[in-house]
Amino acid sequence: MSHKISEIAAALGAEAEGDLELRVTGAAEPQAAGPDQLALAMDPRYADGIAKGQAQAAVLWPGADWRGLGLKAAIFAPRGRLAMAGLTRMMDPGPDIAPGVHPMSVVDPSAQIGAGAAIAPFVTIGRDVVIGANARVAAHVSIAEGARIGADAVIFQGARIGARVTIGDRFTCQPGAVIGSDGFSFVTPEKSGVEEIRETLGTRAEIVQQSWTRIHSLGAVTIGDDVEIGANACIDRGTIRDTQIGSGTKLDNLVHVGHNVQVGKDCLLCGQVGIAGSAKIGNRVVLAGQVGVNDNIFVGDDVIAGGGTKIFTNAPAGRVLLGYPAVKMETHVEIQKALRRLPRLAAKVSALDRGAED
Amino acid sequence: MSHKISEIAAALGAEAEGDLELRVTGAAEPQAAGPDQLALAMDPRYADGIAKGQAQAAVLWPGADWRGLGLKAAIFAPRGRLAMAGLTRMMDPGPDIAPGVHPMSVVDPSAQIGAGAAIAPFVTIGRDVVIGANARVAAHVSIAEGARIGADAVIFQGARIGARVTIGDRFTCQPGAVIGSDGFSFVTPEKSGVEEIRETLGTRAEIVQQSWTRIHSLGAVTIGDDVEIGANACIDRGTIRDTQIGSGTKLDNLVHVGHNVQVGKDCLLCGQVGIAGSAKIGNRVVLAGQVGVNDNIFVGDDVIAGGGTKIFTNAPAGRVLLGYPAVKMETHVEIQKALRRLPRLAAKVSALDRGAED
Amino acid sequence: MSHKISEIAAALGAEAEGDLELRVTGAAEPQAAGPDQLALAMDPRYADGIAKGQAQAAVLWPGADWRGLGLKAAIFAPRGRLAMAGLTRMMDPGPDIAPGVHPMSVVDPSAQIGAGAAIAPFVTIGRDVVIGANARVAAHVSIAEGARIGADAVIFQGARIGARVTIGDRFTCQPGAVIGSDGFSFVTPEKSGVEEIRETLGTRAEIVQQSWTRIHSLGAVTIGDDVEIGANACIDRGTIRDTQIGSGTKLDNLVHVGHNVQVGKDCLLCGQVGIAGSAKIGNRVVLAGQVGVNDNIFVGDDVIAGGGTKIFTNAPAGRVLLGYPAVKMETHVEIQKALRRLPRLAAKVSALDRGAED
Repeated sequence: MSHKISEIAAALGAEAEGDLELRVTGAAEPQAAGPDQLALAMDPRYADGIAKGQAQAAVLWPGADWRGLGLKAAIFAPRGRLAMAGLTRMMDPGPDIAPGVHPMSVVDPSAQIGAGAAIAPFVTIGRDVVIGANARVAAHVSIAEGARIGADAVIFQGARIGARVTIGDRFTCQPGAVIGSDGFSFVTPEKSGVEEIRETLGTRAEIVQQSWTRIHSLGAVTIGDDVEIGANACIDRGTIRDTQIGSGTKLDNLVHVGHNVQVGKDCLLCGQVGIAGSAKIGNRVVLAGQVGVNDNIFVGDDVIAGGGTKIFTNAPAGRVLLGYPAVKMETHVEIQKALRRLPRLAAKVSALDRGAED
Repeated sequence: MSHKISEIAAALGAEAEGDLELRVTGAAEPQAAGPDQLALAMDPRYADGIAKGQAQAAVLWPGADWRGLGLKAAIFAPRGRLAMAGLTRMMDPGPDIAPGVHPMSVVDPSAQIGAGAAIAPFVTIGRDVVIGANARVAAHVSIAEGARIGADAVIFQGARIGARVTIGDRFTCQPGAVIGSDGFSFVTPEKSGVEEIRETLGTRAEIVQQSWTRIHSLGAVTIGDDVEIGANACIDRGTIRDTQIGSGTKLDNLVHVGHNVQVGKDCLLCGQVGIAGSAKIGNRVVLAGQVGVNDNIFVGDDVIAGGGTKIFTNAPAGRVLLGYPAVKMETHVEIQKALRRLPRLAAKVSALDRGAED
Repeated sequence: MSHKISEIAAALGAEAEGDLELRVTGAAEPQAAGPDQLALAMDPRYADGIAKGQAQAAVLWPGADWRGLGLKAAIFAPRGRLAMAGLTRMMDPGPDIAPGVHPMSVVDPSAQIGAGAAIAPFVTIGRDVVIGANARVAAHVSIAEGARIGADAVIFQGARIGARVTIGDRFTCQPGAVIGSDGFSFVTPEKSGVEEIRETLGTRAEIVQQSWTRIHSLGAVTIGDDVEIGANACIDRGTIRDTQIGSGTKLDNLVHVGHNVQVGKDCLLCGQVGIAGSAKIGNRVVLAGQVGVNDNIFVGDDVIAGGGTKIFTNAPAGRVLLGYPAVKMETHVEIQKALRRLPRLAAKVSALDRGAED
């Protein structure tokens, strides 16, 4: 598949100059680009690479001298990463799944699958499942009884959609993701040690030997539109009501979302983030890799937490967090500076102490 | 399926009042409950919700005025979460798997599957596998050669039970869990940098370029009764002897248990906990989300570790831990307080220092 | 299957004494060894176990008095763990997969599968896939269009090899691993809050409500020879060029490798390590469990990072790191000591302060 420079520019809503009829078959970094590939050099520091590669056309920063760079055509991208979104979308072939339902799949007769679906081998689709138009479901996916998925879903290999889960339109699910596992909720006959130390902040009276009884999950998971779930990520079902993921929110690989959690709209939960049960995450929250959120707390709208932050208490809207335990990013920076100076501080105090004794 | 109030109360061993013949079809939060649903309001702060919803019956805190709340019947739960266990168990429909072995499964003729089994499509069961009575095995599960699983197992979609793994009765396995992956164990021809810095606490002599040779895992995994393993959790097999998980222990999603690890009875390992190779965890240990345990150490009975705690050294029985590195919870709280005051302390020392120079 | 003592010694390149014709069927810890098992006692502290067990032969430390230990034969291992590598390799039966392609698999006619392959049930192999000789592919594995895998691969249950992924010889892939999920890369129309706080180190002007647009991943993943990927680990494809894993590198369970990341040769990434997008990891780097690496930084050759270390900035070659944020291991130890003394330091300053006021 090839694209004209004019077509790409139109798709990006960007200006183009030179031979607009020139065709490219793909995109590449400037130094690696072949003669039929579009070089991506949205920043002047990538200019050198163009001479090293063989590209005849490139996406460049605004005002770049494309003729001087030896190119036949150029597209100008005022915000490079945004241009990348349009460009990569245009060139992504998507998963290779034959149209229709593969004969080595098991689809319950009561399931409703929208027009234009492509269902790969070894897929199971349970009783009363409803899937919207144009679904692409890759090999080994299971979609359990009563699940409902909107239009234009792309579900990759081995993803697990649990019973009674509800998902909006334009859903993207990476391989191995599990949506609708049971919540991790157990109770002891008498008060447990965990309940005790939460009240006492760490002190325990007599330790009683007890076993755990399971609280089953009767709720499911409700997911909005335009949501993406990463590879091997897990979202537990709610105990009574559904666990919720708002529209526009994206989860990266290996993210864990506990039972009853509510995640708002347009959030990013990066790799290996963990949200404990019944936490509430606002809208547009960004949690960097390996962040942890305690159970039963809230994280306000627009909070941003840096990598590895462990959030134990409610976080007000707009706060920028870092550290274990989480503090304001500027406080974290101050504390770290003070820590580096701590040995010197101790030495000074010793000296003063000796002086005071003189 | 519907249940009489009297049946539910009997199942919970709880008192009930009002119209005990009233039937409910499910449970809901008070404000969301429909007229045929049982409202769950085990705490007075949920009382307001009952008026907002349409429930005619509720589970209430002891002594609640159910008539005043406009209800026709009430069940009284002295320990609300314990009532939840009985109630949700009663109402959980479980996975929808047809009885018998689905024709699109591959079951080795030497495998023994107990009476009452339900085996879904695309399941593989290997040579000499033994599975107890009433097993429910969902789609895409693999159970490899020589594995033995007790009675009443529920194994969800895509779980992987490895060769020669032994599991007790009433096993629950969430989707995508892997039990019996190979241990992560490699050795270099000469002493490695890791071995060196463990001896020197961080100092390295000459760095030698070496490659890793694999130590294969000849052991398997042995799991007791009443164990639950979370979605996409992983348990490695032992090198020579089996990795062990004691009866009554529950693992949450994405937990990692390394080779040769021994976990005791009635433990809770919450989301994304990681236990490195050959660590030994006692009984009734609770590790909150994202806790890490170093290799080759022990964590004593009844230890509780808060979220994100990194345990590097042996932890005595009954200890409550927090922090990176783990310290007693009360020490952690003290250190955090002192850290917040550190900039002020430094300023005071500077002032004293200036005074001393006067 | 049984092995003569002489055969085992030859395979290990080790000395042996006693009845070299004696046969053993497996290996065991000394106290658990049966009469036909080889006891593993490479260290004098395991000597006592031999008397408790029934082994007639053992692997012992150099110079051990095997006759005095009541044995009929002994193999001497100067570096015990290295002997374990050879021994366990010899005794590992590997996964039980029948030769040839199972009829309940779906292999595209254009795929090329090398001689000696064993392909289990419910495997899918896509268009134009190339797999080298002697591949063993377990149940439920998906290998998507255009993937290329070298000779002697062992791929366990339910692993997902994505489209256009390239892998070298002697590849080992544990169950549920995902190689070639899409990168987690999103962009907002205007500058996002994350971009802003990276420039300002935490300060935000006006918060703008924006949604995320997806940058698709056109690159794939390139993996060298002798690589092992752990259970449920995830490696994202690159945006334009491939994400790269060098020869000899081993990834443990639940490791996350983001898009565009380059990992060098002979590295060990232990359980639950996370590498954010576009980070570059050198050769022979060892990252212990739960380590995190920030996006777009480099970690130099031979770096070793202890458990839970969070690396936010470039790390020079050979550095030994610990802590959140990562510092030199010796600095971390100093800071921790100072922290323990901090309450006492504060008390001393208060006393000096009172003295100064007198």
